[in-house]
Amino acid sequence: MKIETKTRRFSSPLYLESGRILEPYEIVYETYGRINEDKSNVVLICHALSGSHHAAGTYEGDRKPGWWDGLIGDGKAIDTRKFYVISTNVIGSCFGSTGPMSANYPSEAPYRLQFPVVTIKDMIRAQMQLLSDLGIYHLRAIVGGSMGGMQALQFAVDYPNLADDIIAMAATYATQPWTIAFNKVAVEAIRRDPRFESGNYAKDAFIEEGLDGLAIGRIAGHISYLSPDSMDDKFGRNYVSNDGLFELFGRYEVERYMEYNTTNFSKIFDPLSYLYIVKAINTFNLARGYETLYDAVLRIKARMHLISFKGDYLFFPREMEHIYKMMQRNKQSCHYTEVGSDYGHDAFLVELKRFEGLIAGILK
Amino acid sequence: MKIETKTRRFSSPLYLESGRILEPYEIVYETYGRINEDKSNVVLICHALSGSHHAAGTYEGDRKPGWWDGLIGDGKAIDTRKFYVISTNVIGSCFGSTGPMSANYPSEAPYRLQFPVVTIKDMIRAQMQLLSDLGIYHLRAIVGGSMGGMQALQFAVDYPNLADDIIAMAATYATQPWTIAFNKVAVEAIRRDPRFESGNYAKDAFIEEGLDGLAIGRIAGHISYLSPDSMDDKFGRNYVSNDGLFELFGRYEVERYMEYNTTNFSKIFDPLSYLYIVKAINTFNLARGYETLYDAVLRIKARMHLISFKGDYLFFPREMEHIYKMMQRNKQSCHYTEVGSDYGHDAFLVELKRFEGLIAGILK
Repeated sequence: MKIETKTRRFSSPLYLESGRILEPYEIVYETYGRINEDKSNVVLICHALSGSHHAAGTYEGDRKPGWWDGLIGDGKAIDTRKFYVISTNVIGSCFGSTGPMSANYPSEAPYRLQFPVVTIKDMIRAQMQLLSDLGIYHLRAIVGGSMGGMQALQFAVDYPNLADDIIAMAATYATQPWTIAFNKVAVEAIRRDPRFESGNYAKDAFIEEGLDGLAIGRIAGHISYLSPDSMDDKFGRNYVSNDGLFELFGRYEVERYMEYNTTNFSKIFDPLSYLYIVKAINTFNLARGYETLYDAVLRIKARMHLISFKGDYLFFPREMEHIYKMMQRNKQSCHYTEVGSDYGHDAFLVELKRFEGLIAGILK
Repeated sequence: MKIETKTRRFSSPLYLESGRILEPYEIVYETYGRINEDKSNVVLICHALSGSHHAAGTYEGDRKPGWWDGLIGDGKAIDTRKFYVISTNVIGSCFGSTGPMSANYPSEAPYRLQFPVVTIKDMIRAQMQLLSDLGIYHLRAIVGGSMGGMQALQFAVDYPNLADDIIAMAATYATQPWTIAFNKVAVEAIRRDPRFESGNYAKDAFIEEGLDGLAIGRIAGHISYLSPDSMDDKFGRNYVSNDGLFELFGRYEVERYMEYNTTNFSKIFDPLSYLYIVKAINTFNLARGYETLYDAVLRIKARMHLISFKGDYLFFPREMEHIYKMMQRNKQSCHYTEVGSDYGHDAFLVELKRFEGLIAGILK
């Protein structure tokens, strides 16, 4: 499978939900597979908070493949011998699309806190512009989990004729206060970190030593991505063997896991991007811009496939079920599956075996 | 009801579980009611992480009563016309008992990080010393919630002949990784805060402006004290009316709640104490010091009353149920009640109406 990474620069303005304008802006995206003649084999992939356009394949010299590599590829559930897969990086990101550290044209200085708040609606509007520039007006399917699932749902509502199938996983119809509270840890930890300098940190300031605030916020994130059961399985009450039980900073294995993963993350992810993307997640509400959630959902024409995970403590299964029940009452085409997993929210990234058959079946 | 606040200084050493020694040490405690002639009416109250000995009554000039004032007082569930109630402040605390900011005798300088790690077992050993000094060898009951419930359980196991009834609420037999992970946010946020100065901050440094690290850690705490349902009820997706929805730092009401409560808390609670008490919670394991949990539980002779709250996301009801089932199999006297509350862990502090009758019944 060949990976092609491209950047598209748009000179037309992007009108944001806030009333502000992003102009110019860029989207980085990857494609896998080949587009067929009538462009009827395009599948769009949407990424989550910490993800990027690099969903599949392994770059030369890299050890780690893309974040959904188990799902996308030759002969895999999203089969790149049959489908032309497009995976775009959301605006606001730090991985190439226009975000808070991009130049605030015509200045060459980065936007920083001058960057406008972007929403899930804005993210998909930017992706629509990309598709339109590529001459793609119809998608076989849109697939995403977590914030990617929010995008898939928003596509279904805002552009009802775009895709045949929408597969949204581990998401919600509107972000609930429980999740906003988890995000609040990151918001406050980043904002109050003196090295954040109110967003005026030097570029590349955190490559050597990540921003503590981001690492701390990410601990709260990881709690919400796991679940009590998955933590019991993974760590139990095991103590790090070299750490003394009666030393104040001696650690349980769950603590070491949190330290290790979050410190690494804080070296590769930009804190301003994190704040902006978290804001997009917090403000996600499928009903916004419509009279009610019911009106929004009623617009959907695609075949909907909603997948939740039993042990998801970030977006509880009942939240997806809420959409399902609404669509069922309306006799709209909707399937709902609650995958039995104790892996927590992260199941959409790691328990592929549990739902790849489902996705393959939908795309048959 | 008269509040008497006293301090007891012990000159005999306290031998800690770690092998270290605390000497001398002090315990601050409050009493409510009158002790009867044969000292058969004593009830011991154990406090939680952020609590103190001030469980009931209102100090002169204060507006806020003690943390369990609804439960303890004349004519209340723990009736101070009948019972002599003793409420002690745990060692490690910043509210008067010996803790990390106490003088490291014979020096006058505070212990800071030289303070030994204390455990729940150590906390109750110190309380045993106090009771012994007061000539009290038998208790009518021991009552506590959360970390207070841990103490009550540890009393039941370590001192099986001490109390007639043990009432332990919203606790566990051993702190699980889910809870340790929540605490980890506070540990890292405090530790990495430059103003913490590796524990060498000036005394009273945070009275004006609390330590950010503690406030941030406390956000994670508050998430775990509430529940998805209680947050839905309390805040929903309401936005703070003066904050713009499309401002990066505009806030949902749940965010304002988190900001307000945690910032206030960081001005009144000492960060070193927080670290030490969190450590005591993390290391809590009723089985430690015995062959197995089964062996520990088998020692219990008191009538046990275990109370969980349905929506408790910090110590899940199944954790208390685990003890109950074990005792039931052993035909030990044990009652288990799962109180139907969506209030989350905090229910033990706020939903008194739901369990005060239960407690009054036990103490009849």
